[in-house]
Amino acid sequence: MTHPWCPIPGGVTAPDGFQAAAVTAGLKASGKPDLSLLLAPEGAVCAGTFTTSLVRAACVDLCAERLAASGGRARAVLSNSGQANACTGDRGLIDSQRATQALADRLGLAAEEVLICSTGVIGVPIPMDTLLAGLDPLVAALGPDGGAAAATAILTTDLIDKQIALEADLGGRRVRIGGMAKGSGMIHPNMATMLGYLSCDAGVPAEVWQAMVGRAVDRSFNAITVDGDTSTNDTFLAFAAGPPLGPKHFEALEAGLTAVSQHLAKAIARDGEGATCLIEVLVEGTATEAGARTIARTVCGSSLVKCAVHGRDPNWGRILAAAGRAGVLFQPDAVALWLGAHQLMAAGQPLPFDRAAASQYLRERATAAYLVDDTVEIRLLVGNGPGCGCAWGCDLSTQYVHINADYTT
Amino acid sequence: MTHPWCPIPGGVTAPDGFQAAAVTAGLKASGKPDLSLLLAPEGAVCAGTFTTSLVRAACVDLCAERLAASGGRARAVLSNSGQANACTGDRGLIDSQRATQALADRLGLAAEEVLICSTGVIGVPIPMDTLLAGLDPLVAALGPDGGAAAATAILTTDLIDKQIALEADLGGRRVRIGGMAKGSGMIHPNMATMLGYLSCDAGVPAEVWQAMVGRAVDRSFNAITVDGDTSTNDTFLAFAAGPPLGPKHFEALEAGLTAVSQHLAKAIARDGEGATCLIEVLVEGTATEAGARTIARTVCGSSLVKCAVHGRDPNWGRILAAAGRAGVLFQPDAVALWLGAHQLMAAGQPLPFDRAAASQYLRERATAAYLVDDTVEIRLLVGNGPGCGCAWGCDLSTQYVHINADYTT
Repeated sequence: MTHPWCPIPGGVTAPDGFQAAAVTAGLKASGKPDLSLLLAPEGAVCAGTFTTSLVRAACVDLCAERLAASGGRARAVLSNSGQANACTGDRGLIDSQRATQALADRLGLAAEEVLICSTGVIGVPIPMDTLLAGLDPLVAALGPDGGAAAATAILTTDLIDKQIALEADLGGRRVRIGGMAKGSGMIHPNMATMLGYLSCDAGVPAEVWQAMVGRAVDRSFNAITVDGDTSTNDTFLAFAAGPPLGPKHFEALEAGLTAVSQHLAKAIARDGEGATCLIEVLVEGTATEAGARTIARTVCGSSLVKCAVHGRDPNWGRILAAAGRAGVLFQPDAVALWLGAHQLMAAGQPLPFDRAAASQYLRERATAAYLVDDTVEIRLLVGNGPGCGCAWGCDLSTQYVHINADYTT
Repeated sequence: MTHPWCPIPGGVTAPDGFQAAAVTAGLKASGKPDLSLLLAPEGAVCAGTFTTSLVRAACVDLCAERLAASGGRARAVLSNSGQANACTGDRGLIDSQRATQALADRLGLAAEEVLICSTGVIGVPIPMDTLLAGLDPLVAALGPDGGAAAATAILTTDLIDKQIALEADLGGRRVRIGGMAKGSGMIHPNMATMLGYLSCDAGVPAEVWQAMVGRAVDRSFNAITVDGDTSTNDTFLAFAAGPPLGPKHFEALEAGLTAVSQHLAKAIARDGEGATCLIEVLVEGTATEAGARTIARTVCGSSLVKCAVHGRDPNWGRILAAAGRAGVLFQPDAVALWLGAHQLMAAGQPLPFDRAAASQYLRERATAAYLVDDTVEIRLLVGNGPGCGCAWGCDLSTQYVHINADYTT
């Protein structure tokens, strides 16, 4: 997708009027920053997409209800990391309400204008005294340069922060979009990501914004998988506030929105627990875009494909096996398959290929370096339909097991 | 389920009239037995259930077509391990036809009465000269004591063989059911298992047999998962041949069929690649049995639940998170949860529990010993509906990654 957007520094506070802050309240055992705040300018619209899991955290209920009641308007979001506030019983919602009310009082807002996102261990309540004691220093730290600090404070098992800002000239006017996200495990979003936040300094009608955000999320956060586990807390909140933008620029705006969302989504997959490389699967030739994305995500999510990539083993049969169980109709005898530049199948027939060179292609991809290309590209053509779609994931390493075999105790 | 069935030795050849054999043809690099044969008595009916993957092996096509054409009748099945004969292009079906024709000639049968199952690496053709050269010694080795040898020859990455035989007195008549199976990775059967074979020395009408087998498979092979990857070759073939059994004994026969199938399915989950324990998830209180099984299998398949069990970490929030994304409606505020005898939730509220004792419960479960109880029992009550269902899986260890990161190269 070509678009007029260029990277700029500043993350989620790059757009005009947005402020952020982060402090160490003491919610994380590690002693790292764990409480953050994003404040949008007056009049901001906010589109939220949330986990589709039946078991969802109290904070997700609160966000969804407040955005529905306000018709997509909100001003601030508080994020606490360390405790997910999911499966905490009746006190979960009470704690979310108390936290947002206390923050609203300090910001001079109504509680209904304040949202909250929690991330961390499921089943453990938030230590409320600790959180509440952190609010004064948090509000005091608010500023237009707070994006980087906020992007760090929302992390849990993530190794690196995930933020980006883009700028474009739309009809002679400078528009900026910023974003930040967190997520590394329990990543198979089904609606939005773990936690993702986006800011934009253009004014857009709430319903137009919600539709744009929905499409961008489908092409980004809903197209990644680390381990197939959908979180109880997945939340993506996208704020827009500023001088109104004309409808003729909506398409360009959506391109920027999609670019920011895809950057953050790929950063999450790249930082997947234990990952050593990013896997990008492009599927073409289905009847629909959604069908292509479903096949791509199934391949990305296959434990066996992930292990083969980890072992830098071009065991391509596993790619076909995963595609076959995706639940999307295609013609196996039309399949063509590429691993990077190496073609492995044509018209459903396996081709002879240079196994050593294909293995070398896999070995050269590694996120650890961050300098070289870290992306393993798999391309699957499954027919002559117009549908094409992409999904992103990562390899499965012994480190993933180590991280998750001993997380709470 | 109570039933009149008692264990006996003999595996798949325990029922009257069944013969089996195995030889080392040279298809496996390891030099272990790799070619086997099961021969059913004249007049046998055969019910087959197969992978639902769109990408399926040539041998699966052959089995499904021959059973459909014959109305559920077959006499013999050849099994080769080392090459799956999936994604092998046009030669896949030709090779399957050649192998069954050559075996049929030696057995004095029509090719249409002979089936073939292949297992091993996807995308690699069967070395046909090697297979064909093994047929004479294979047929020469046929005998009523060949069950154990056949159960060994069908294995690939399995660590132990999987077989069982049960006997019951049904109306004064001795009836026997035998079975064997293989499978350890790419285990998330969606129709049947990797490879499973069942024999029974009672005569049952083909359509009654097919229906019974379908229900037994749903409650056994379709209720296990090792890694969420459905194989291209999943096949379960159940033969029945003998004096006709009266309809009043069908219920008891189905109970035996289910018991044999569940034994084999659990043996596969227990022998899951890298597994150190068996996980059994019982879900109760849904509207339907299928809904309960779907939730149970989703919990069993969660990488995060599997890692927590591997780390002997009672991180129960992951169980709820997995149940919530299963796609089956239930009331989160009705949930009760037990890990062994430890109750962790009641009416949707977390309960205080002895974390050290729960962790100790997990530590005491290990398949390695084979002497002690190896089953981690998770029980989830999600409402007051009549549905209940079970699923089985295993933990996720670093060994799983080692096994699968370097399988072909």
